[in-house]
Amino acid sequence: MIPTDIDGAGRDILARAQALARHSDSPDHYTRTWLTPAHRAAAAQIAAWMREAGMDVRTDGAGSVIGRYEGESPGAKALVTGSHYDSVRNGGKYDGILGILVPIACVADLHRRGERLPHAIEVVAFADEEGARFQTSFLASRALLGKFDAALLGRRDAAGVRFDEAMREAGLDPAAIAANPADPARLAAYVEVHIEQGPVLLGEGLPLGVVTAIAGGTRHLVTVTGAAGHAGTVPMAMRHDALAAAAEMVAAVESRAKSQAGLVGTVGLLEVKDGTGNVIPGEVSFTVDIRSGEDALREAAERDVFAAFDAIAARRGVAVSARRNHAVRATPCSPRLQDLLAESVAAAGAPVRRLPSGAGHDAMVMAEATEVCMLFIRCGAGGVSHNPAETVTEADAGLAAAAVGEFFRRFRQAA
Amino acid sequence: MIPTDIDGAGRDILARAQALARHSDSPDHYTRTWLTPAHRAAAAQIAAWMREAGMDVRTDGAGSVIGRYEGESPGAKALVTGSHYDSVRNGGKYDGILGILVPIACVADLHRRGERLPHAIEVVAFADEEGARFQTSFLASRALLGKFDAALLGRRDAAGVRFDEAMREAGLDPAAIAANPADPARLAAYVEVHIEQGPVLLGEGLPLGVVTAIAGGTRHLVTVTGAAGHAGTVPMAMRHDALAAAAEMVAAVESRAKSQAGLVGTVGLLEVKDGTGNVIPGEVSFTVDIRSGEDALREAAERDVFAAFDAIAARRGVAVSARRNHAVRATPCSPRLQDLLAESVAAAGAPVRRLPSGAGHDAMVMAEATEVCMLFIRCGAGGVSHNPAETVTEADAGLAAAAVGEFFRRFRQAA
Repeated sequence: MIPTDIDGAGRDILARAQALARHSDSPDHYTRTWLTPAHRAAAAQIAAWMREAGMDVRTDGAGSVIGRYEGESPGAKALVTGSHYDSVRNGGKYDGILGILVPIACVADLHRRGERLPHAIEVVAFADEEGARFQTSFLASRALLGKFDAALLGRRDAAGVRFDEAMREAGLDPAAIAANPADPARLAAYVEVHIEQGPVLLGEGLPLGVVTAIAGGTRHLVTVTGAAGHAGTVPMAMRHDALAAAAEMVAAVESRAKSQAGLVGTVGLLEVKDGTGNVIPGEVSFTVDIRSGEDALREAAERDVFAAFDAIAARRGVAVSARRNHAVRATPCSPRLQDLLAESVAAAGAPVRRLPSGAGHDAMVMAEATEVCMLFIRCGAGGVSHNPAETVTEADAGLAAAAVGEFFRRFRQAA
Repeated sequence: MIPTDIDGAGRDILARAQALARHSDSPDHYTRTWLTPAHRAAAAQIAAWMREAGMDVRTDGAGSVIGRYEGESPGAKALVTGSHYDSVRNGGKYDGILGILVPIACVADLHRRGERLPHAIEVVAFADEEGARFQTSFLASRALLGKFDAALLGRRDAAGVRFDEAMREAGLDPAAIAANPADPARLAAYVEVHIEQGPVLLGEGLPLGVVTAIAGGTRHLVTVTGAAGHAGTVPMAMRHDALAAAAEMVAAVESRAKSQAGLVGTVGLLEVKDGTGNVIPGEVSFTVDIRSGEDALREAAERDVFAAFDAIAARRGVAVSARRNHAVRATPCSPRLQDLLAESVAAAGAPVRRLPSGAGHDAMVMAEATEVCMLFIRCGAGGVSHNPAETVTEADAGLAAAAVGEFFRRFRQAA
């Protein structure tokens, strides 16, 4: 049942990703943000490919393109798959796009063979996941489920264009953005294909990965207040150095995150207020980002890290305070669908590796309506993503298409 | 021989410091930079106080005001004392100024009594030590010794005024700035009174300190290069986090500096390049400032710190490089003069505490021409200096005047 020409499928998928990247807001690099002319052109191209693959195509209120390949009986529940066709600024050509092009290739294969499945397949090209234009988050998948925050309508982009004006210019009705939500009763499940955006599969020499959960995470902004002083005249024992304290806290985040598998902890930003070479730092602020596929693991790590901060601050005679800016719970992938994906990966001839997703995906939103799973494709170039250096191989894209084709056929609705 | 009214002397010194601070470049705070109208007015006031104390007054090529109180025989070698009357921006009223006002008070006392010493006393009010206007360093003391860098003449201040134009506007001849240097053969020694600018005397409840050495120091800019990555998708074991490495290096600086008395080490500035909460830092730069009154101690610490940096970088798979921006050797104070100052402090009724100076002073330059020593006065308000909160008490200023008066009388030229 595997498409006979995996390499050919991979070549076609990569060629389409290249072609689609030409629809960019910038002539210099690949950036495609919600409802720009490049974004609308990309939508039209995706719709054309969907039609060519035998799908009926519609566009929803947020500009997402939805192709439906009917099942054996008309009106069957849909196995939904997809990802986003917007990008970060100066992004990678495969992020999001593979999750649209791989299933289109699979549906095209079914269509070529004249094959129908017990369920319909719907491929959703989400119009906005990154949210680079209006600083939104999962805009299109939320809108698909009827969960749109109307407060966004008045928001403006960097050029001063209002959200609702941008919609009207693109021929969309701001009042109808989430007016016809997908009916959860009509969704059989959601599967998302995505480039890994990390180095795990690359490091292990594996083409595909079955995602166990999409990590939850919190981000805090921490401020340490000590006492500024002259770098020459204050003896070491009399100091309350905010940076020396913060450095010890950075080490505490790293060592706690390293102490358990399935946990990552990052201090990505650290700033010394009024920092200069000959002054003992009086105030330092930094971020703490902790993620895990298991909420309990993450919450225990957070407790330990903040207890360590308090102990470090007390010992050094500095003050520490923290503010939580961001919190998302983990999204477990359906065990049943993970197993089905694993069988499909094996049937396609690839080893099965299960791993969590550290980044967020539309599947997190879709999980509010149906059971979800995800297939990762190995990310080249050291695992970099959100970057023009992002790469994927033809062979890996072809294997992904083979595995997803298998999954489409093996899938049965939950009992 | 001690002036009978120590409290009165202290009160007068503080009142004069207050009065002098009104000659400021800014109406809002105390800032006095080289050759501004406020700076020239302060010079005129200091000259008037010197004349009132029985001194002959001259101004040198850099605008420094020099008062001479003749010895028993005319043309005797001079025991030189003084400090600077410029300030940093938004500085403290006592920094520099006490080293001018305390000896003027002592000479006034000699003059009142009609007392002459075997040596002359010369009080030098250095026109520029902080160098806030033209980013210079020890400009006036260098000029006094004929060590002026002519390249400075073309430098411009923040308002675009050229160094030589500023001199002409103030009635000084740029060609003569260092034309009549002090003759080292005519200098018997140099003693400088200065506010401590640190918390040591305050912490120990002591009014005065005898300086053992002015610390030498180096400053390096260190750059750590790791690999940027997604904070969610790169497992801890696969990271080369530049900030986690830098944090460990900050800890290494602190722990090495703490391991020995007489050493301080500071990371005052640390910057994460393109830092943001959800990205593993790829590049971090930070400063390392290490100081000691003993060069050998400092050099050993520097070797250990940079060896630790290399070991940390190798273990973490990151690169580290360092560039030295600044290096000054320590200036030991004359043991003979330290002892004489200690006797004078004791005679004034204060306990003797010897301590190094972590900050630089004009005495560092004067040491190139003669033997030097320094007397510290306790700094209030937690030891802060270069700040409007800088304070000194009347009692401490009076005790300093008593000790310096003793020193003037006890001083004999080196054999």
